[in-house]
Amino acid sequence: MRRAISMLVAGGALAGVVAFMAPASGQADGEAAPIFGIKLPAGYREWQLIAVAHEEGKLNDLRAILGNDIAIEAAREGRLPYPDGTIIARIAWSYDPLAESEKAFGHPQSFVAGLPKNGVQFMVKDSKKYASTGGWGFAQFNDAKPASAAVHETCFSCHAIVTARDFVFNRYAP
Amino acid sequence: MRRAISMLVAGGALAGVVAFMAPASGQADGEAAPIFGIKLPAGYREWQLIAVAHEEGKLNDLRAILGNDIAIEAAREGRLPYPDGTIIARIAWSYDPLAESEKAFGHPQSFVAGLPKNGVQFMVKDSKKYASTGGWGFAQFNDAKPASAAVHETCFSCHAIVTARDFVFNRYAP
Repeated sequence: MRRAISMLVAGGALAGVVAFMAPASGQADGEAAPIFGIKLPAGYREWQLIAVAHEEGKLNDLRAILGNDIAIEAAREGRLPYPDGTIIARIAWSYDPLAESEKAFGHPQSFVAGLPKNGVQFMVKDSKKYASTGGWGFAQFNDAKPASAAVHETCFSCHAIVTARDFVFNRYAP
Repeated sequence: MRRAISMLVAGGALAGVVAFMAPASGQADGEAAPIFGIKLPAGYREWQLIAVAHEEGKLNDLRAILGNDIAIEAAREGRLPYPDGTIIARIAWSYDPLAESEKAFGHPQSFVAGLPKNGVQFMVKDSKKYASTGGWGFAQFNDAKPASAAVHETCFSCHAIVTARDFVFNRYAP
């Protein structure tokens, strides 16, 4: 994919296209996560937003769900199941009170995203390759390194709670 | 801008470019918000994510801060002040408990974005046009209609709390 982009640019086409294509360029180099063999997708932080959430308890984070172009299109249309090629990213940060707004309001008011927390997780749709897990491969990376096999063994059983929504917890936030 | 895109497509260039350019196409038609004269920017929901937050109290929402390309570049680099042309969007949704995860965990666990709430807000940087308000114009739209002048009179005084951060509360979530 990187080679294709280089050719496009070398060909004198639109340099601006690079910024657009990079996030969709699929999987980067690096170590593959266990069980499902997924590598950290390139440019996922630049993907469009599907939804946001706050997790309480031990997780205690603020999180965003991003999607590659295939995911976003399906999510916007509320179309299930997600098509092959879908990649959904879950990123998360510490849940931090914002001192400035507490001062202004006189009580805790705003909680904002701090440092990265609880790793980065991905769901990759490939209905043939991952047929035994609802068509989804799962991956978690902590500081860009794959989490253990034990972690990856927990993904599908939890997502089975939402089998009726193609194993995806989030809904598109309009 | 829409005309420029049409010409590009009619010219037989890359159709995929449309999806890339649309979010950067500036301000759409529609009624301008009072005081600052800002119209609802086109395609803002497709902009990249700067940060997420939860507001308590009367606001009681989950929110995402998105930025146009100029905003995102500056936010990633932590560069202040934001350059002219920056547009920052604040979208928000109701703060809804997720029944599925409460069932799985046995207690309230996940709070997710529900329906749109508290309008959509924008900060537009134009250091000359908005010189008297720190270089920023402010706008709020409720169901795509501009909020009242009274609402817009409150923007700058509140953002003055964070004058040292170029009047922007949020920080880029890495």
